Amino acid sequence: MSNPVLVEVTRGKLVESRHRGAVAVADADGAAVLALGDVAAPVFPRSAIKAVQALVLVESGGADRFGFGDEELALACASHGGEPGHVATVERMLAAAGLDASALACGAHWPLHQPSGRALARAGGTASALHNNCSGKHAGFLCAACALAADTRGYAEAGHPVQRAVKAALEDLTGAAIPDERRAIDGCAVPTWALPLAGLARAFARFGTGRGLAAGRAAAAGRLRRACAAEPWFVAGSGRFCTDLMAHFGERVFVKTGAEGVFCGALPEQGFGIAVKCDDGQGRAAEVAIAAVIARLLPPRERDADFLARFVRPQLRNWNGTVVGGIRPTEPLGAP
Amino acid sequence: MSNPVLVEVTRGKLVESRHRGAVAVADADGAAVLALGDVAAPVFPRSAIKAVQALVLVESGGADRFGFGDEELALACASHGGEPGHVATVERMLAAAGLDASALACGAHWPLHQPSGRALARAGGTASALHNNCSGKHAGFLCAACALAADTRGYAEAGHPVQRAVKAALEDLTGAAIPDERRAIDGCAVPTWALPLAGLARAFARFGTGRGLAAGRAAAAGRLRRACAAEPWFVAGSGRFCTDLMAHFGERVFVKTGAEGVFCGALPEQGFGIAVKCDDGQGRAAEVAIAAVIARLLPPRERDADFLARFVRPQLRNWNGTVVGGIRPTEPLGAP
Repeated sequence: MSNPVLVEVTRGKLVESRHRGAVAVADADGAAVLALGDVAAPVFPRSAIKAVQALVLVESGGADRFGFGDEELALACASHGGEPGHVATVERMLAAAGLDASALACGAHWPLHQPSGRALARAGGTASALHNNCSGKHAGFLCAACALAADTRGYAEAGHPVQRAVKAALEDLTGAAIPDERRAIDGCAVPTWALPLAGLARAFARFGTGRGLAAGRAAAAGRLRRACAAEPWFVAGSGRFCTDLMAHFGERVFVKTGAEGVFCGALPEQGFGIAVKCDDGQGRAAEVAIAAVIARLLPPRERDADFLARFVRPQLRNWNGTVVGGIRPTEPLGAP
Repeated sequence: MSNPVLVEVTRGKLVESRHRGAVAVADADGAAVLALGDVAAPVFPRSAIKAVQALVLVESGGADRFGFGDEELALACASHGGEPGHVATVERMLAAAGLDASALACGAHWPLHQPSGRALARAGGTASALHNNCSGKHAGFLCAACALAADTRGYAEAGHPVQRAVKAALEDLTGAAIPDERRAIDGCAVPTWALPLAGLARAFARFGTGRGLAAGRAAAAGRLRRACAAEPWFVAGSGRFCTDLMAHFGERVFVKTGAEGVFCGALPEQGFGIAVKCDDGQGRAAEVAIAAVIARLLPPRERDADFLARFVRPQLRNWNGTVVGGIRPTEPLGAP
């Protein structure tokens, strides 16, 4: 089965590139609202489920024990740009648990936010695990391990209590057991579990509404969701899609990107969860696809249509700033 | 018509992402050696035809007039990383024609080679048009304009003598007239002409062998090809696919990447030209595809198979260096 072309990239009068993919939108009971392409095939959600992974930080009591507010909780759900404010907050989270960067298992890379990387170089600094886009999540895992009285060493291993709790939360939210052979290693060393898009959409409907969840889990989900809406810069960073969308929509929209063309999201007022996978792994197409789904399913308020237009149909400019083409959703995504 | 999946990206035991595309291999008469997918649809070749664009520098007499050797000619064919040696050579090319960076129309960006970008930041520098990956090509255009006694201003416009000469060379090499509606604007502001992969494969068979070309053009092509084989670092840079392949194979293989998943190449001894387009525009898939084509069509010498293996089936590692998956060609590309 071949997934449909969801997004086209144009240059001049021609289509230059095409992105196939699948989209699932579901409610908290798993009823399909929209299904494009194969929504049953297992997909590694990668960082798109960081908010589910962060449930363990709240449910373990770690967030309360270490006095974390919206900034820290949003950062635990983040793929951040390694900007100075992200790095400082990760350090503060680690310090609250008596730890430092040496406890992080995510590996080092230069900040994804290029100006911050250059500023770091200019100041004579170098890449560290603190700059890793996943360091907030890892700080959350470490704090959860402390709250669970588990060893902080080995927290990234599949058998560690933190990762076992993450898997259990994923099974609860998606409504299905996850076979062990669906496990692989993520870019930041923790397990990633391949899940059908239909299950991920249901999971984010539950995450966004609390429906179908035990009271404590529903409260933890609501707390994380509100933290991301209140502090969206901590979920991604300057000029980033997730940050810009949540800054505009507030609690009406939750979105989170994952590597290899994955996006998960929720429209809490509508009770919908959304999961997108671009077959070829390109984030530019996943962004346009989830923006198009939001434009289609979220009842618009004033300014929403204008705001969304630049994400649904971004222009492409060359190095001189000349518009040379664009990216656009196709008819299956509801494009006119 | 749907192009076949040519390349798969794996994580753990599962396929995480898939890349569709088309491949054409042809001889100098245009006879097909290999055709996968739609090789008749127009494709913007982008930077993959820089060596054809550089013909004008040689044929105009500019290369001789300004005393250019292999380094300058290779750089005129390059998508370089903006490493210090690239930048210095572009400056030298411009100075030879009495010009400086202000003449470049390509626009400014930070070096693609990340360590060079950080070193530039550390030294208090900033992005300029010299760092643009296309600055060598643009310096070549400017020198060609001087040799043609044309105004250097406006050299990036479709109506300028240099760009008209580029279009004529493309028509000669591909063997077909190019309608005006196939023109769009490239990332560096010059025209890019959409061409069928079959025509591009024929063009690079001619470029690689000189067959079917007038004597002067065949000599110019041979001179550029040998320059790239002799100075492959100037065609791309440190750790780059094109540089690594040509450094290993020398004059046996010519390869050049283009934006949006395009690759062109030649196997001169076999008389073949190669053109690849990954539907979704991802370079990682285009690299694996052209490496697989070379592995299939180039009679191997000692060490070739081992060398090519890491380009045909690259491993994917996470930030800790752990192998988490890989990229591999599919059966249509000849994978066992």
